[in-house]
Amino acid sequence: MGKEIRFGVIGAGYMGKAYAIALNSVSTTFELPARARLEMIATTNQEGSAAKAAAYGFSRATGDWRKLVADPNNDVVSICSPTYPHKEMALAAIAAGKHVLREKPLSVSAKDADDMARAVERAGVKTLVGFNCVKNPATQLARQMIDAGEIGDIVHFRGTHNEDYLMDPSLGMSWRLKAKYASRAGALGDLASHIVNLAHYLCGPVAEAIGESQTVYPSRPGDGGLLEAVENDDQTNFLVKFESGALGSFEASRIAAGRKMGLTYEVIGTKGALYFDQERLSELRFYSAGDPSNRRGYRTLLIGPEHPDYGAFCIGAGHGFGYNDMIVVEMKDMIQGVVSERPLWPSFRDAVHTASVVDAVPRSQDERRWVKVSEIAEELPQ
Amino acid sequence: MGKEIRFGVIGAGYMGKAYAIALNSVSTTFELPARARLEMIATTNQEGSAAKAAAYGFSRATGDWRKLVADPNNDVVSICSPTYPHKEMALAAIAAGKHVLREKPLSVSAKDADDMARAVERAGVKTLVGFNCVKNPATQLARQMIDAGEIGDIVHFRGTHNEDYLMDPSLGMSWRLKAKYASRAGALGDLASHIVNLAHYLCGPVAEAIGESQTVYPSRPGDGGLLEAVENDDQTNFLVKFESGALGSFEASRIAAGRKMGLTYEVIGTKGALYFDQERLSELRFYSAGDPSNRRGYRTLLIGPEHPDYGAFCIGAGHGFGYNDMIVVEMKDMIQGVVSERPLWPSFRDAVHTASVVDAVPRSQDERRWVKVSEIAEELPQ
Amino acid sequence: MGKEIRFGVIGAGYMGKAYAIALNSVSTTFELPARARLEMIATTNQEGSAAKAAAYGFSRATGDWRKLVADPNNDVVSICSPTYPHKEMALAAIAAGKHVLREKPLSVSAKDADDMARAVERAGVKTLVGFNCVKNPATQLARQMIDAGEIGDIVHFRGTHNEDYLMDPSLGMSWRLKAKYASRAGALGDLASHIVNLAHYLCGPVAEAIGESQTVYPSRPGDGGLLEAVENDDQTNFLVKFESGALGSFEASRIAAGRKMGLTYEVIGTKGALYFDQERLSELRFYSAGDPSNRRGYRTLLIGPEHPDYGAFCIGAGHGFGYNDMIVVEMKDMIQGVVSERPLWPSFRDAVHTASVVDAVPRSQDERRWVKVSEIAEELPQ
Amino acid sequence: MGKEIRFGVIGAGYMGKAYAIALNSVSTTFELPARARLEMIATTNQEGSAAKAAAYGFSRATGDWRKLVADPNNDVVSICSPTYPHKEMALAAIAAGKHVLREKPLSVSAKDADDMARAVERAGVKTLVGFNCVKNPATQLARQMIDAGEIGDIVHFRGTHNEDYLMDPSLGMSWRLKAKYASRAGALGDLASHIVNLAHYLCGPVAEAIGESQTVYPSRPGDGGLLEAVENDDQTNFLVKFESGALGSFEASRIAAGRKMGLTYEVIGTKGALYFDQERLSELRFYSAGDPSNRRGYRTLLIGPEHPDYGAFCIGAGHGFGYNDMIVVEMKDMIQGVVSERPLWPSFRDAVHTASVVDAVPRSQDERRWVKVSEIAEELPQ
Repeated sequence: MGKEIRFGVIGAGYMGKAYAIALNSVSTTFELPARARLEMIATTNQEGSAAKAAAYGFSRATGDWRKLVADPNNDVVSICSPTYPHKEMALAAIAAGKHVLREKPLSVSAKDADDMARAVERAGVKTLVGFNCVKNPATQLARQMIDAGEIGDIVHFRGTHNEDYLMDPSLGMSWRLKAKYASRAGALGDLASHIVNLAHYLCGPVAEAIGESQTVYPSRPGDGGLLEAVENDDQTNFLVKFESGALGSFEASRIAAGRKMGLTYEVIGTKGALYFDQERLSELRFYSAGDPSNRRGYRTLLIGPEHPDYGAFCIGAGHGFGYNDMIVVEMKDMIQGVVSERPLWPSFRDAVHTASVVDAVPRSQDERRWVKVSEIAEELPQ
Repeated sequence: MGKEIRFGVIGAGYMGKAYAIALNSVSTTFELPARARLEMIATTNQEGSAAKAAAYGFSRATGDWRKLVADPNNDVVSICSPTYPHKEMALAAIAAGKHVLREKPLSVSAKDADDMARAVERAGVKTLVGFNCVKNPATQLARQMIDAGEIGDIVHFRGTHNEDYLMDPSLGMSWRLKAKYASRAGALGDLASHIVNLAHYLCGPVAEAIGESQTVYPSRPGDGGLLEAVENDDQTNFLVKFESGALGSFEASRIAAGRKMGLTYEVIGTKGALYFDQERLSELRFYSAGDPSNRRGYRTLLIGPEHPDYGAFCIGAGHGFGYNDMIVVEMKDMIQGVVSERPLWPSFRDAVHTASVVDAVPRSQDERRWVKVSEIAEELPQ
Repeated sequence: MGKEIRFGVIGAGYMGKAYAIALNSVSTTFELPARARLEMIATTNQEGSAAKAAAYGFSRATGDWRKLVADPNNDVVSICSPTYPHKEMALAAIAAGKHVLREKPLSVSAKDADDMARAVERAGVKTLVGFNCVKNPATQLARQMIDAGEIGDIVHFRGTHNEDYLMDPSLGMSWRLKAKYASRAGALGDLASHIVNLAHYLCGPVAEAIGESQTVYPSRPGDGGLLEAVENDDQTNFLVKFESGALGSFEASRIAAGRKMGLTYEVIGTKGALYFDQERLSELRFYSAGDPSNRRGYRTLLIGPEHPDYGAFCIGAGHGFGYNDMIVVEMKDMIQGVVSERPLWPSFRDAVHTASVVDAVPRSQDERRWVKVSEIAEELPQ
Repeated sequence: MGKEIRFGVIGAGYMGKAYAIALNSVSTTFELPARARLEMIATTNQEGSAAKAAAYGFSRATGDWRKLVADPNNDVVSICSPTYPHKEMALAAIAAGKHVLREKPLSVSAKDADDMARAVERAGVKTLVGFNCVKNPATQLARQMIDAGEIGDIVHFRGTHNEDYLMDPSLGMSWRLKAKYASRAGALGDLASHIVNLAHYLCGPVAEAIGESQTVYPSRPGDGGLLEAVENDDQTNFLVKFESGALGSFEASRIAAGRKMGLTYEVIGTKGALYFDQERLSELRFYSAGDPSNRRGYRTLLIGPEHPDYGAFCIGAGHGFGYNDMIVVEMKDMIQGVVSERPLWPSFRDAVHTASVVDAVPRSQDERRWVKVSEIAEELPQ
């Protein structure tokens, strides 16, 4: 048996399970220099953790994440906890020399993100942040096409991430709605962060932003049905200017009736355009001004084995890529990044930029003016 | 033969022809209290005007719009000229007691729009501004559904009007690119004005706005191929807050590769949502949270005779409504408005609000801050 | 004033009105060698006919179609009556030396169609049959692309024409459901005839067919609510082989829940493919194997002024073509055909082929075998 | 550690790998009474098999499928070989008392399928045939909705399975194109079999069929580039009548330019309709005549945790289901079927019906007449 990369996963909820599914299949899907091993899982108690280990296929379990972080048999620590406590976890893992795969968003603030990124840079470990939508073959293809100049220079980007999982005001509280655990950025931090990161990936860094966020339902029933305050936004709109000079428009909502995975983007270039809608995960729409003028039209590229990473899953084009498959690509990237010198994207450092844009939005709203991302950066410890 | 409403049309270009097509068929399509009569057309010279009169079916022609405006046999004056000179035309028509149908945008500034609206109110004539997309049965239906509470309270509106007719930088100058004739608002005035008006129709007035416009191609070849300065924007993004408290996001472009009639809107309510794309003119997409939770989904309503104004065109649902059909509805509304006391929408007064929002955007960009629409309104003569 | 072509229209129902709308606007829309004149309309009584003449803009009216046919001031006779009596009308019009525009289907049998086509050939008049869907710019474009070899040799055609206007079994009787007036071919004659004609236009003649039709609701309430027998099919499926060797599959239904104008076709060639759905009237989807293999995909061509006949309606691509606009093209073709030697398609002779394929289907069902179209043809008088 | 079901897989190509991916993740995805164990893999030689075992995660490897079949540590034998030799494999596995999961199609003839089904019934083992598209949550939902009467009685079914993987005539030979290995049914056996099985699942058994298949490219380059004969069809069309009386239309092609996974179906009922397109794997379109008449339209149900089997993959609706996820459901079903008395669908017996319909089509073509499925059944050994 060849080399293995041993994963320790903190958290066994929605994303913890998704990670486990992906870790179980990644080494069969891709030919890799090392196989993934589901070494250990940590939840908040030993008994529950052991049950999850059995259910998910991990070798060992612990009720104490500190043990997982310290365990010499874990090569990678994957953190799927709520946003708040993860900073402590991440710093501990980095201090222990572990590579870290952290679910998005990286942090509750740019400051925290930067603290972690600095620790990473001192320790020399590898990091990846779980903005999984950039792992989609369709979006990787978009990046390739942009890099190859197929749509010319980018002049406009529009990104949305709209869902409706909280459109019902009787749905209860969770950590995601509390400033302490998820920051003052609600849909902004949970959803818009995805498209900010994506825009960075496709169009380069953002220079400045202005926006308006809103908490449409200011209280929701908590434990025992008593109303509790919602401490972050239900929806947000913001405009940006990229460093390249291109304009951008962003919007996110967790109360957008009808949208289940309404992560969409449109990139307009001087020679063409791209459009993507994650509810149709396996399609990239492409308009080329290079076609004869009377034969131009948006074409739907059905993702297939000629596009990035798809062929490992299926040899037939258009057979369909799923949400969990994006996580498999994420695991593949992590393994390759750990074993080789291949850079990982988005690293903690890349995610500092995402967090800085996210931080700029409420400031712009407080001060009713455009905020430069460099203003946020300058406040970070030098 | 019954009553007639006699139309005099100034201009025989793109919209002048569209008006003529519609005036020829409106009285057959709809049962009206008065038939439309193509009384007179005016272009810039007598000979050309006579040729157009013959081609389009007008009874008389003139090379001098002042004659058309003064002619006692014209009941309605339709102005399809470029934006700039129309103010003088409109004021003359109003002074002559004519009802006025003015192509959009109404004016190069809120001030001009207000001047005209005041003249109208003094004269007591009927007016309509050619924001024809609100005449689409799909959009009329959207308004009915909103009024009936089918999507609950509106929390978010996104409107786009993207086209690519100027994406090629070698395409030449026109009056639309000059500040004097079309104002400093390029895509903003030509295209975004449509969706501002539409948003007003669907969601009520806008309270404040902030935006950023951009001239991507600052010069284009003019007469003789010499480069001339482009004096207004190629693309614009802006955010608004409606008076109702709902948030809005707007975008318009004349260089958006791939979009031919990219007028789209999404209205998110507390109980459902609506989506429209004018490239699919005969469809309104509707999401209702009133459906059972496992049977919810955006449904595509194909416009048919049960929806506003469609049945006059065709008794079969889904048979297809066209761009020129919207102009026919516009003419029908104008005739009904003139004959009866039925209010017309959008009147010159309604268009003052559109113009005020359009004016707020460059000011917000100059001053890097949110601008209230009331700031614009307060500067108008009291 | 220039030359005129004077139209006499028999029938003032659905299609009679559609013809009138189109005749009113065709001469403004297109630059033509002669303007259309709405000369006379005939319904079944003088008074009703006079009212329709006033409503639709005809100069004269009659309650006797024979007078219209005989009137020397009518150049073209347009027949919009139910299918049955039209043969007598058409033969009378031809005998009177009129050009004839006949609503589809041409006849209740191939025999009748052939009788008419022979009379036409003896008289030397011009004819057009109202299979209006071939007048759509999208479908004209499809034909151009096929002729230019853009999809290679055709190997497969699938056509559907599904609607649901009779899906409710409580909906009452009409002439369309009676063998005498509409033939034994129900959805087959009313709807499938459109796609047979279309297939002929795009792929050439059909060699043989086999099918199965079905009357799902054998009786429906007639006058007074008493059940009456439905005498023709609600739905039909048939396979064909074209003379070229290509295979084809056809289906039509008047009870197909959810389809309002479900006229679709897919043409598969050796180098590409085309797809059209009349519920999206202004789009032609095109797949080209000539694109690089990793950039292939169905592209949506939004019909614009570079495509056939669209530019006369609107100079902006993608602005939307409507159902009635197809009738306008039909009228334009008729006028051009009458004035010039430009051949008209589909003529009565072309429609004989359509009728022969339609006749082959029930015979194939009766005899449970493939029927050659030549078997039908050989039975026609030689 | 709990109970395990040990899988032996014959074949390590496209489907062998897909099975391995699914077996690795199924026990994490679903809570099951027994975990899947990747016990053994067999290819045609020991060395290659060992390499595949290492790559895919199997414990053991063999170069001789007979050893795998005979091995007492394999509970389930999964056969992913080409169609031809599998019968011997399946019979040997059944004889050894193994449960069998056989990739589709089950056999090269109804006779062979029946022989296997009889052996299964004598042995009392569990079987499943890999018509994986029926495992899609969208299609399971379609079945639930039909069973619940949500679209009323079915009157029409149209199924297509079009791909273009062989549209290029220079693409070489494979076992799929040879009668001996894949039968005389090419696209018919490989692709149409999917939709026949699916139609059986949704609409019940087929009573009779007539069709026409065609080999468009009769030879293709084989080893050394020499042309070899293609021995089965490239495309096929056939009509059916279901035992219920409903009509059906089927089409399949491996040369259908532009279609990558063009498996679509439309089910028309008396009260509504369903539409599915596997290129959009996570959507089921539903039309309900139960909606108010002016609010009816096809709605797009994005598959989510309220629909069958999806929630085990992801708690968020519309996040996207992939092709390999269907195989995971297949494995889940197989495990549940083996452990419990829950019936498996499609079993070998169910697949006899599919094979019988497939056999009826070429006979109908040879004899130019409709063929009853019972004619095929009656020829099977009694």
